Amino acid sequence: MTPSAIPLQPKVKYKKFNYKTEIEWKSGKRGESKCAGRPGILVSSPPEFRGEAGLWTPEEFYVSAIETCALMTFLALAGRKNLSFLSYRSSAEGDLEFVEGGYRFTRVTVRPVISISDPEARRAVLDTIMDAHKKCLITRSATAEVVLAPEIRVETD
Amino acid sequence: MTPSAIPLQPKVKYKKFNYKTEIEWKSGKRGESKCAGRPGILVSSPPEFRGEAGLWTPEEFYVSAIETCALMTFLALAGRKNLSFLSYRSSAEGDLEFVEGGYRFTRVTVRPVISISDPEARRAVLDTIMDAHKKCLITRSATAEVVLAPEIRVETD
Repeated sequence: MTPSAIPLQPKVKYKKFNYKTEIEWKSGKRGESKCAGRPGILVSSPPEFRGEAGLWTPEEFYVSAIETCALMTFLALAGRKNLSFLSYRSSAEGDLEFVEGGYRFTRVTVRPVISISDPEARRAVLDTIMDAHKKCLITRSATAEVVLAPEIRVETD
Repeated sequence: MTPSAIPLQPKVKYKKFNYKTEIEWKSGKRGESKCAGRPGILVSSPPEFRGEAGLWTPEEFYVSAIETCALMTFLALAGRKNLSFLSYRSSAEGDLEFVEGGYRFTRVTVRPVISISDPEARRAVLDTIMDAHKKCLITRSATAEVVLAPEIRVETD
């Protein structure tokens, strides 16, 4: 075959996914966010933007979307590698700043703390959470810079 | 005063805000998203990514963050204008597509349905929801194109 006759690599066909939510205004600064088959979540604005205290806000959904995606991507990758760990928890914080005429999130920092029992697994677990960070689809959908600062703890009896 | 001696306009000092969440892995593909003083939310991946059905996902948090921010910004602007309306509900959907080596949200469409009793308020309500869309800080923090498709209904007895 001449080079020009080499058949083109068949293209991988990637699926398109679609996610739906609903919201209903209740009264004052209170709404209920809904998603089919899930419990409803009462939402408001943060108190500093004259919202009702004690309710989830769009700002927290944004930060949690990134934080939750890091965990879920880690679980998927760790599962494929049969990597075991004892616990995973993280804290996350998002910085909202006024830039170029309006407020937006400029940075979200996620700090996972992953406990393992086998010291030899430290490298693999660290590589996996960093890989999860790179592959996180919410991070790819955010203009904020997302910083991952993981800590791997070896727990011995 | 010569032009060069005109004092510079004092800069408006914009505050910086910070939003914090936490997550704890429970078992399998299940975690609990937490925020101080709010009820915890059980989360997973979507079933198509091998998650547990019936739980909120990062994808839905992302879409709801945008949808909830549109409502909350509308409530703030309508309040300032003393604009009255009977009800507000919306549906939203986000398209997740594979682009440039990974999945990300390419578009989020929010469809608010706002009911009013005074037909004369239609224009002001429409202007206000479009303005809320422009000022939505989560939309500014998202790489997805956000499309707002509002409907204003006049309800007569």
